[in-house]
Amino acid sequence: MRLHSYWRSSAAYRVRIALALKGCEAAVVTHDLRADEQRAPGYLNLNPQGLVPALESDDGAVLTQSLAILEWLEERYPAPPLLPQDAGDRAQVRAMVALIACDMHPLNNLRVLRYLRHQLGADQAAVSAWIGHWIAQGFAALEVLVARHSRGFAWGDAPSLADCCLVPQVYSAQRYAVDLAPYPRIVAVAGHCAGHPAFRAAHPLAQPDADPDA
Amino acid sequence: MRLHSYWRSSAAYRVRIALALKGCEAAVVTHDLRADEQRAPGYLNLNPQGLVPALESDDGAVLTQSLAILEWLEERYPAPPLLPQDAGDRAQVRAMVALIACDMHPLNNLRVLRYLRHQLGADQAAVSAWIGHWIAQGFAALEVLVARHSRGFAWGDAPSLADCCLVPQVYSAQRYAVDLAPYPRIVAVAGHCAGHPAFRAAHPLAQPDADPDA
Repeated sequence: MRLHSYWRSSAAYRVRIALALKGCEAAVVTHDLRADEQRAPGYLNLNPQGLVPALESDDGAVLTQSLAILEWLEERYPAPPLLPQDAGDRAQVRAMVALIACDMHPLNNLRVLRYLRHQLGADQAAVSAWIGHWIAQGFAALEVLVARHSRGFAWGDAPSLADCCLVPQVYSAQRYAVDLAPYPRIVAVAGHCAGHPAFRAAHPLAQPDADPDA
Repeated sequence: MRLHSYWRSSAAYRVRIALALKGCEAAVVTHDLRADEQRAPGYLNLNPQGLVPALESDDGAVLTQSLAILEWLEERYPAPPLLPQDAGDRAQVRAMVALIACDMHPLNNLRVLRYLRHQLGADQAAVSAWIGHWIAQGFAALEVLVARHSRGFAWGDAPSLADCCLVPQVYSAQRYAVDLAPYPRIVAVAGHCAGHPAFRAAHPLAQPDADPDA
């Protein structure tokens, strides 16, 4: 398998965590989003959206969209499971996933922040306020869900797709210096995950294109 | 079952379509988003995010987040299937779902447009340009995927979760007067769905809280 990735992309980070949890090997192809490398014609042919991640499977299929890739990994590589067995429990995990992947991350990714700056003329203070607002909205609700369901990890006592999304979102919030003090349970889950080798292997700073000075 | 809904919410519309396709009966509880009724304490206790939809199942579970609800319906009520059988094909359908539900809809929903207006001081022209930009970005890529996979519906010749998301997004684009001429295949799929009784039953104007003058 080949994973098209960028070290600081939250969506690629989710897939890296799931691959590592499943024990799947994938060669990493990096695209520098700051240089718009993901908009190059060759890559657009693979992924018409021009976004990372994309996963090329061993049989030549090209999978796009991190949530679709996570579900595919769960179906093709069922062990260890990253969703509970019961349908109602699965829905709770997927609700955490969607809370992050639909209601938080899309508002704060690079292309949106660029639009705020360049098309709407937002200054750094306005952009920071925007970022903080959507993270606070999402984490306040996620904190309640984690309080209900966590026993170490976001849902229960084993890693799930919820952790695959929570950890990159916490990383992003820290990068933007958002105060996480109001969300002690989310912070505790992220800390718990940080001790797990799969989460360590997937960390942005462990990637071949990491640029700690950026 | 009880569905917490608002006639014009894209996310609730998705779930209404899936319920109708599955032949599931659900009482509808309406919340007027313009009056912030979804932020009332009683509803926040059900859904800490204060968003619609939420689905109360027959066994008393409360499900939130439209994508999680769609997957739950598919698992609990497998006929008719709204995902293909093959894992690779399922990933293609879920990629269309996520393209709409993660990369288009979250940027243009009511709470975001309010932020643009009230916190960033965007005027109507700037808000319209924002809406049109993200719809164009998403639909341009979705048009390529639909061209690859459609045989009447978004993926193949039967309704899928992709149609549950595509139809509300087209409705939203039309509501905002976005030019859909560059996306003839998406428009064709929406037209095809419009003839299906489940899609007609789920339409915003068929809802008890519909306000055609709004």
